[in-house]
Amino acid sequence: MSRRNIELSDGPFQHKRSSLCTGRSRTNSLTSPTRHVHYGTMDDSPPVGTPMPNTSFYHRAHRLVPSHGRQRTVSASSIDVYEDPVTGMDRVASNSSMHTYQRGHRASEPIIDTQPLIRQQSSPAKETISSKFESLDYEVCENELYRKEEFKESYQVGLWRISRNRWIACFFIGIFTALVASAIDILVTISKQIKFDYILKGLILSCDHNLEMGESANCMWTVELVWIIYNCALVGIAAFLVIWISPIAGGSGIPQIKCYLNGVAIPDVVKLKTLIAKAIGVSCAVGGGLCAGKEGPMIHSGGCVAAGISQGRSTTLGLDFGFFKEFRNDRDKRDFVAAGAAAGVSAAFGAPIGGVLFALEEGASFWNQNLTWRLFFTSMISSFTVSSVLAWWYGKAGWLSWTGLANFGVFENKNYNIFEIPFFLAIGVIGGVSGAAFNALNVRIAKFRIKYVHTKRQRFMEALIVAAMSGFFGFLTIFMVDDCQPVGVNPNNTEVMQMWCKKGEYSAVANLFFHNPEEGVKSLFHAPINSFRPWTLLIFATEYFFLTAWTFGVSVPSGIFIPMLLTGAAWGRFIGISLSKIVPGVTGIDPGKYALAGAAAQLGGSVRMTISLTAIIMEATKDITFGLPIMLVLMTTKFVGDLFNEGVYDSLIDMQGIPVLGWHPPKMSRNINAQQVMRKDVVAFERRERVGRIKEVLEVTSHHGFPVVDRIEESMTGPLPDYGVLQGVILRSQLMRILERRAFSIHPDGRTGSAYHLTHEDFVDDTDCKTKSMADLGLTSGEDLMSWVDLSPVLHPHPHRVPLNASLPFIYKLFRGLGLRYLMVVNDENRLRGVITRKDVARYRDHRSKNRYRLRELLISEDN
Amino acid sequence: MSRRNIELSDGPFQHKRSSLCTGRSRTNSLTSPTRHVHYGTMDDSPPVGTPMPNTSFYHRAHRLVPSHGRQRTVSASSIDVYEDPVTGMDRVASNSSMHTYQRGHRASEPIIDTQPLIRQQSSPAKETISSKFESLDYEVCENELYRKEEFKESYQVGLWRISRNRWIACFFIGIFTALVASAIDILVTISKQIKFDYILKGLILSCDHNLEMGESANCMWTVELVWIIYNCALVGIAAFLVIWISPIAGGSGIPQIKCYLNGVAIPDVVKLKTLIAKAIGVSCAVGGGLCAGKEGPMIHSGGCVAAGISQGRSTTLGLDFGFFKEFRNDRDKRDFVAAGAAAGVSAAFGAPIGGVLFALEEGASFWNQNLTWRLFFTSMISSFTVSSVLAWWYGKAGWLSWTGLANFGVFENKNYNIFEIPFFLAIGVIGGVSGAAFNALNVRIAKFRIKYVHTKRQRFMEALIVAAMSGFFGFLTIFMVDDCQPVGVNPNNTEVMQMWCKKGEYSAVANLFFHNPEEGVKSLFHAPINSFRPWTLLIFATEYFFLTAWTFGVSVPSGIFIPMLLTGAAWGRFIGISLSKIVPGVTGIDPGKYALAGAAAQLGGSVRMTISLTAIIMEATKDITFGLPIMLVLMTTKFVGDLFNEGVYDSLIDMQGIPVLGWHPPKMSRNINAQQVMRKDVVAFERRERVGRIKEVLEVTSHHGFPVVDRIEESMTGPLPDYGVLQGVILRSQLMRILERRAFSIHPDGRTGSAYHLTHEDFVDDTDCKTKSMADLGLTSGEDLMSWVDLSPVLHPHPHRVPLNASLPFIYKLFRGLGLRYLMVVNDENRLRGVITRKDVARYRDHRSKNRYRLRELLISEDN
Repeated sequence: MSRRNIELSDGPFQHKRSSLCTGRSRTNSLTSPTRHVHYGTMDDSPPVGTPMPNTSFYHRAHRLVPSHGRQRTVSASSIDVYEDPVTGMDRVASNSSMHTYQRGHRASEPIIDTQPLIRQQSSPAKETISSKFESLDYEVCENELYRKEEFKESYQVGLWRISRNRWIACFFIGIFTALVASAIDILVTISKQIKFDYILKGLILSCDHNLEMGESANCMWTVELVWIIYNCALVGIAAFLVIWISPIAGGSGIPQIKCYLNGVAIPDVVKLKTLIAKAIGVSCAVGGGLCAGKEGPMIHSGGCVAAGISQGRSTTLGLDFGFFKEFRNDRDKRDFVAAGAAAGVSAAFGAPIGGVLFALEEGASFWNQNLTWRLFFTSMISSFTVSSVLAWWYGKAGWLSWTGLANFGVFENKNYNIFEIPFFLAIGVIGGVSGAAFNALNVRIAKFRIKYVHTKRQRFMEALIVAAMSGFFGFLTIFMVDDCQPVGVNPNNTEVMQMWCKKGEYSAVANLFFHNPEEGVKSLFHAPINSFRPWTLLIFATEYFFLTAWTFGVSVPSGIFIPMLLTGAAWGRFIGISLSKIVPGVTGIDPGKYALAGAAAQLGGSVRMTISLTAIIMEATKDITFGLPIMLVLMTTKFVGDLFNEGVYDSLIDMQGIPVLGWHPPKMSRNINAQQVMRKDVVAFERRERVGRIKEVLEVTSHHGFPVVDRIEESMTGPLPDYGVLQGVILRSQLMRILERRAFSIHPDGRTGSAYHLTHEDFVDDTDCKTKSMADLGLTSGEDLMSWVDLSPVLHPHPHRVPLNASLPFIYKLFRGLGLRYLMVVNDENRLRGVITRKDVARYRDHRSKNRYRLRELLISEDN
Repeated sequence: MSRRNIELSDGPFQHKRSSLCTGRSRTNSLTSPTRHVHYGTMDDSPPVGTPMPNTSFYHRAHRLVPSHGRQRTVSASSIDVYEDPVTGMDRVASNSSMHTYQRGHRASEPIIDTQPLIRQQSSPAKETISSKFESLDYEVCENELYRKEEFKESYQVGLWRISRNRWIACFFIGIFTALVASAIDILVTISKQIKFDYILKGLILSCDHNLEMGESANCMWTVELVWIIYNCALVGIAAFLVIWISPIAGGSGIPQIKCYLNGVAIPDVVKLKTLIAKAIGVSCAVGGGLCAGKEGPMIHSGGCVAAGISQGRSTTLGLDFGFFKEFRNDRDKRDFVAAGAAAGVSAAFGAPIGGVLFALEEGASFWNQNLTWRLFFTSMISSFTVSSVLAWWYGKAGWLSWTGLANFGVFENKNYNIFEIPFFLAIGVIGGVSGAAFNALNVRIAKFRIKYVHTKRQRFMEALIVAAMSGFFGFLTIFMVDDCQPVGVNPNNTEVMQMWCKKGEYSAVANLFFHNPEEGVKSLFHAPINSFRPWTLLIFATEYFFLTAWTFGVSVPSGIFIPMLLTGAAWGRFIGISLSKIVPGVTGIDPGKYALAGAAAQLGGSVRMTISLTAIIMEATKDITFGLPIMLVLMTTKFVGDLFNEGVYDSLIDMQGIPVLGWHPPKMSRNINAQQVMRKDVVAFERRERVGRIKEVLEVTSHHGFPVVDRIEESMTGPLPDYGVLQGVILRSQLMRILERRAFSIHPDGRTGSAYHLTHEDFVDDTDCKTKSMADLGLTSGEDLMSWVDLSPVLHPHPHRVPLNASLPFIYKLFRGLGLRYLMVVNDENRLRGVITRKDVARYRDHRSKNRYRLRELLISEDN
C-alpha cells in the first residue's frame, strides 16, 4: 500500500522523496533497505487527525485495494516505481495502439529528455521546501449537486445575496482594519507621551534641579537607565506575546501574508489570537523604542481582520456568528485577506492605490476587475476611517482630510531638473548595494539565531538585550556626537530634546533617535538644509542600519518599512547636503528630495518592491511630481540589488521553505515534462467504492483529495495498480461528509436502499470535516463497512489534466493562472498516470551562477 | 469535405452556423436544402489568400481525405453532424469501453443537461457576433524545435537580450507616445490661437471698428460665419482622413484597444496609417471645435506607436527595420500595445498610475508583475517626456514638474465634511442616470446612422453639419444667455471673450463653449463661486450633453472623456451653487468640489470605468484627498447606470459584434458543457501527411490551425471522420513554412531524402506566412504533391484540452486565465471530438430581465 497511497499530497511521503533523493537520482535509493524504515517512520508519526489502527502495514496495504468485481492482489515486488522515467512509461502505455511502426521509429531517435540537462541539485542540508505547509484550494468543485443548484428558484436570490455580502464584508474589513491601525497608532503615541513627559522632561527637570544643587553631574545616565528599563518592559510584553502566545505574530507579517495570498496555508496566520498578539505586540515594540515599524504588522493585522470578518466566526474564541457562511472556502477567504492587506497598507500610509497595488503585486495571482474594485473600496473605507478616527482623536472631528498614519508631509519645492537624474540613479545604485548588504546581514543573523538562540527563554532575553542596546546606543551617540542646534531652526519640530545641549538648543541626534521614526523621516524630508550636520546623518544611518538588521527577526512584531526609510533618508540627505556643497552654484538642490530618493532606495533595495512602493511613497508624500525619479531610483535599486541576492521577504520565505510559486516558470525548464514532475504513487478510487476501503484510505493517508478512475487493476509489471480513465476528483472533506451523513447503502448501486439525500449545502462549509477524526464517524458495524458509496454526484467530474509530455512552463502557467492545487497527469488514452501538486512545481527554481541560468530542484523536507 | 473541414476557425463556416440557427435549434435547418447554397457561397468568396481551384466541390472533398495506409471513402450521407448534441456523442464514442454496465446505468438516470435550461435565444437580426474578427494567438508553441533551443549555447544570451530589448522597446514607446500626444496638444493649441487671434480678436476688432462707423450691428454674425467655416474646414480634414484613409481611426479608439487587449485582432487597428489619421484627425476635430476630447485618441495612438516600435517595421510603409524580431508574435505585441495604451493615458492626463490601472482594468487579462512594471516604466517615461516637451514649448526647458496635458489644477480647499457624503452619493445617482441616458441616446443615434447615413459622402456631410451646428449652437447660446461677468472675477482666466458683452466684461458661456474643453473643466473646478450663473451652467450642460451624444460616433477621431467631464462639471457646479444657496449657513460647500464630483459621475456613468478612472482623476487633480468621495460617486454611478444599460464602449463593441470575453463567465451557464459549446466539424491531420492533402486543406479552409491526431478513420455512423487520439496542434503558418522550405520527402517517413533542415528560427516570424498565398509556394509537380511531411517536430504536442463534460465556466476560466485561442475537446479515451474557439465561448452572454439572470446565446454572423 505504501507505494500506492500517495496522492494530492501535502503529506508525509514527500519526506521520503526528499530526504532520500531527488530527480533522476531517486532511482536507486528507493530500492535501498532504508525505504522500509522511512515508511515505518510515516506510520509511527501519522498526521494529525488520522489515527493509525494497529494492523500491520502490509496487511492494511492489501485491504486498501478494492476487491469488488475483479480480483486484485498486491504485488510486493521490489521493482521500483521510479525506475525509468522515460521507458517506464512504455510499461503502462496502452497496447492497443495501431502505430507500432511509428512509435518504434520515434523511439529510436534521440529523445530530448535524455540529453544532459543543466540542472543543479542542491544538497538536502542546503535548501528545501518544507512539507508542513498545505496549499489552499481555489478550485470550484463543479459536481452534479453543484450544477443542480442552478435550477433552483433560490439560486437567483443567492447570486444577489452573495454579491451584496461581499461588499458588506469589505466595508467592515475596511472599518475594523482602520480601527486596529488607529489603535496601534494611538498606543504608540501614548507611549511616546509617557516617555517624553515623565521620563525625559520630569527626570531632566529633577536632574537640572540636582545639578543646580551641585549634587551629581552624571544625572543624565539615570535618565538613560529609566528610559532603558521602560523600553525593556514594553519590549518584554511584545516578546512574551510572540514567544509564548502566538509565534506567527513575530516579525513583519508581510512574508506570511504574501505566502497566504500565493496559495500556501500557513498555520494560524490569520487567526484572532495572531491579530491580538500582533497589534498589542507591535504597539509595545515600537513604543519600546526598537528600530521597528508598525506598518508591516498593520498589513498583517488587516489580513487577520479580513479573515475573521469574512468567515463570520473565530476559532480562537470558538465563536460562530453564523453570517457569511457562503464565504467559508479558501477561494473567497483569500480574496478577503487580499482586501484586508490592501486596507492595512491604506491605513498605514494613507495610500489606497498603493494598497491595491501592494495586494496585487505581492499576492493576487488573478487579476480580476471586480476583486480589484472591492480591494479599492476596502482601501478607501480604511483610509477614510483612519482619517475620521484620528481627526476625532486630535480634536478635529468631522474633517476628513487627515490621511494615513505615516504621513511624510508635502514637499514645498516640487521641481527638479533634468541634470539631477544621474544623481538619483547613483542613489539607486547605493540603495541597491546597501539594501543587498542589509539582506545578507539579516539572513546571517537569522541563521545565527536558528543555531544559537532557539529556546524560548533565549529568544526572550535577546529581545530585551536588543531593546536595551537600542536605547543605550541612542544615548551614547547623543553623548558622543555633539550636534546641538538652536531651537527654532526647524520649524516643524515642536517637541525638542535638550539632552546634553545648552539651554535654547536641542540635540538633532536625539530628535532622530528618540522621536517616532515617522517624525524622523518627515523631518529629514522637509527640514531646512542646516537642521542636521552631515556627519550626524551618516553616523545615524550606519547605526540605525545595523540596529535594524539585528532587530528585524527578533521575536517581536516589527516592520521594516519605516526603519529602512529612516536609514535611507538619513544617508540620502547626507548626499543631498554634500552635493549642494560640492556644486554650490546650482540652485534647486534640496537635500529633502535626496532624502526622499535615499529612503526609497534603501527600502526598495531591501524589499525589492517596485510599483506598489512607488505608489505608496507618492501617496504618502501626497505628490506625483517625484514619481519618475522615485521610479528610476527603485528600478536601479532593484536591478543592482538583484545582482547580489533576493528581497528580504523572499529570503525569509526561502529560509522557512515555504512552497511559493513565483510569477514566472524557471527559465531553463522547457525540457522538464509532466512525467518528471509528477508523483506516480497515487491512491485513487473507483466511482463506486466500499465504505470500508474509503475509511481505511482516509485513515492511513493525509491527502486532501483523491482522483477517481473508472477502474483499478493490478499492474502486470509494477507494484502500483494500473489505473483506468480519469473520471474526476473527490476531496477528503467530501468523503468525510458522505460517511458522516451515512450516504451509502448495502445495495451495490450505492444509492437505493439507504438514505441518499445529500445536497450541495452539505458540502458548502467543510471546515469541520478538516478537523474531525475518523473515529467520530462511528463506522464500526460490519454492514457499514461492506456498504457501497456511489461517488458520482459528489466528485468533480472534470479536473484539470495534462498529458505526460506537457512541459514545466506549461504546467506552471496552469497552476499560476488558474490557482490550482493539483493537476492530474494522464497518458494518451486518458488513463491516470500521476498527479502534480503545487509543491512539486514549487520545487523547481531558477538559479543563476556565472551569468548562466540553471534549473535547481529543491528537496521537500519534513523538518523546518 | 465541407462537413469536416472546420477547425480552429475564425473562418467562413461560422456563417453557416450563425446565419441559419444556433444552439439546439440548428439541428433541422442544417439538413435543409439551403445548406448547399451556403457552402456554395463560401466557395464563391474564399478568404483572402486562399485561391480556390476549379475542381468540383465533392471531388475536392474526396481528395482531402488522406489515403495512405488505410482506405477511406467519403460518406456523403445527409445525417446531420449536429443531430443530437447529447446522444450524438455516443455515436462517436469508442466501442472498446469495458464499462457498458456503468455507462448504461448512468445513461438511464436523469441527465442534467437535458433539463430545460433558462436560455434566451436572440433573433438573428438583433445581436450577433461578427465572424470577421480573428483572435490573437497567445500560446507558446512548445514544439520539439522550440525545446531544442534550450540546449543551445546562444539561448542564455538570447534570454538576456530579449529581456533587455523589452525595456528598450518600452522606453521608446514611452518617448514616442508622448511626442505624438504633445504634437496633438500643440496642434490644438495652435488652432486655438488662430481662432482667437485672427478670427475672434481680429474680426471683432474690425466689427467694433465697423460698429463705430455705424455700418452694421450684426457684424457678430459675420464672425460666426467665419468661425464656422474655419471649424468645418478642420473637421472636414478629420472626416476625410477617417472616411477615405483609415476608417478604424474614427471615434475614441478605446473600444478598439480594449478589444485588441482582450484578444481580438481588429484589422488595421495598430497600423501606422491609423496612427497618422488618428493624430492629425483628432487635432483637427478638437481644433475644429467639436465636442470631442483628444484623450481617447491619444490612448489609441499610444497603442499604434507601441505596435510599430515593438515590431520594428511598418506594413503601411513596407519598411522593415529589422530590429525586435523576437517580438513579432501576438503575445509580445499585445503586451507592448498595453504599454502603449498606458503611456497614452499617462501622457493625456499626467496619470502614470492611472495609465497602468487603465491598461489592466480595460485590457490585460493576465496580471503579471514584470508586465506591470514595464507598463509603469513606459507610463512614467511618457509622462516625463510630455513634461519635458511642454516645458520646452512653453519656454521653461529643463523643469520637469509639468505634468500631463489635461491638468485639472490643484484644489486649494482640500477638506470636506462627513455630512457632504450624502450629497456626493446623490450626484452619483444623477450621474448614473444621466450617463445611462447618454449611452442610450448615443446608441440610438448610432443605429440611425447605420440605417440612413452609410455612404461615404453622407458621413462626410454629417461631420460638416455637426461642426457647423456645434459652432452655431455656441453662438446662439452666447447670444441668448446673457451671462456677462466682469473681467477679473475669475483670476485663472487669462483669455476672455467679450462677444456681445459690454466692455470690461466677458461672456461666461463663451468661456465654456469656445475655449479648450480642458480649460473649461479647470475653470469649473476652481473658479470663484460667482464666476458662472447657475442657469448658464444648466443650459450649457444640457446643450453639451446632446452635442456630445451626436458628435461621438461621427466619422472623426474624437474622445468622450473631456466632453463628459465638462458636462458633468457644469451640472455638478450647478448643484454645488444650489446647495450653498439652500443651506447658506454651512461653510465649506465649495462648488468646485461638486463640479469635480459631477464630472466624475457623468464620465463614470457613461464609460463605467471604476478604479482607473478614480486614479486618473486623482492624478489629474494632483490630490488624493478627494479619492474617497470620487470613489463613492463612481461606485454609485456604476451601480445605477448598470441598472439601465452597459457602458458606452461596451455598447459600441456589442454593436460591432466583436467577440470579447468579459471578466466572468455568464452566471447561469454551469450546465452548458463542452459538448454543446464545441464545433464538431473538424479538419485534422495525421502526424505524417501527404503534401497534396496539406495543400488542399490550406486552400479550401481559412483556419489558422489544425489538430493533429494519431489516425483518421471513416466513421461508421456519421459523415465526419472518426478521429483518433489527440497528438497536437499545428498552425497554418507552420504548414506554410514547411511547404515553402520544402521540408518533405518522397520517402514515407517524411524526413530522410529531402532536406529536413528546419530550425526554430524558421518559425519565429510568421507574418509573411499569414499573407502569402498558396500559389507562391510553387508546389505543382506531381512528385511534390505525393511527398510526405512529418509534422512531429513542428506541432505543439500538448495543446490545452478538456473533456466533453467540462462546464462553460470551467472553459471560460481557461480561455480567460490563459489567453487561449482554441481548446481541444476530447472524449474519455482522449480522442478528438471537437474544438472550442474563442468565439464559441464569447457567444454566451449574461442577460438580465425581470430581475433574473438568463443565459443568452448570440449568433455568429458574417455581416456587420
